[in-house]
Amino acid sequence: MNQNRVSVRHVDSVLAVEVKAGTGTTTQVLIGPEQGPNFAMRRFIMEPGGGMPMHTNTVEHEQYVLRGSARVQIGEEVHHVKEGDVVYIPAGVPHTYEADQGSEPFEFICVVPNGPDTIELVDC
Amino acid sequence: MNQNRVSVRHVDSVLAVEVKAGTGTTTQVLIGPEQGPNFAMRRFIMEPGGGMPMHTNTVEHEQYVLRGSARVQIGEEVHHVKEGDVVYIPAGVPHTYEADQGSEPFEFICVVPNGPDTIELVDC
Repeated sequence: MNQNRVSVRHVDSVLAVEVKAGTGTTTQVLIGPEQGPNFAMRRFIMEPGGGMPMHTNTVEHEQYVLRGSARVQIGEEVHHVKEGDVVYIPAGVPHTYEADQGSEPFEFICVVPNGPDTIELVDC
Repeated sequence: MNQNRVSVRHVDSVLAVEVKAGTGTTTQVLIGPEQGPNFAMRRFIMEPGGGMPMHTNTVEHEQYVLRGSARVQIGEEVHHVKEGDVVYIPAGVPHTYEADQGSEPFEFICVVPNGPDTIELVDC
């Protein structure tokens, strides 16, 4: 796939990969750097009770919650997010996700700039 | 709002602005260049039967369909898109949107790189 190529595909047709640092968490690269020249669009799905431990990334996150709900801590701030919430996480700020218990997974779009991203877990 | 500031807010709290080149179309800047250093996240809503005429942008679009359905032409390709479809429109490629008739609006997330974007309507 190259950067001049149009594409339309359904999210459910995209390979989901387990996020090893997380619990019950998968990610899908919906539009990756081989196609989009500047940023990548991914979807994350966290099963009820799943999530990611406190960590930092070297890149910022622009997110849109599609479904479900979760406790999200970003730096010192704790938020309870749900469908339709828009979340901005600056580069380098520690953050964690804990999907709510229940029957519905927590799903969100997460856009990051292309280029190297180092993930570091944070002791807390 | 600056680039080091975390934010969480619901999409429905964000000002919607009419897109003058379109019909029955509004846009909301969910995360703009004053906050995200590299790219902007917007939501578009097109009322049933609304849309945008054939045009080009100088920047690429990475899109995720949230609700509703539409006929989308990108270059020579015609697609019928619906919830969960992921759409990549390369910079400079003419495209148009026609939201389906019915009771449900066509809603999608559209991410673009920061920087100048010139929109040009295309005769067809």
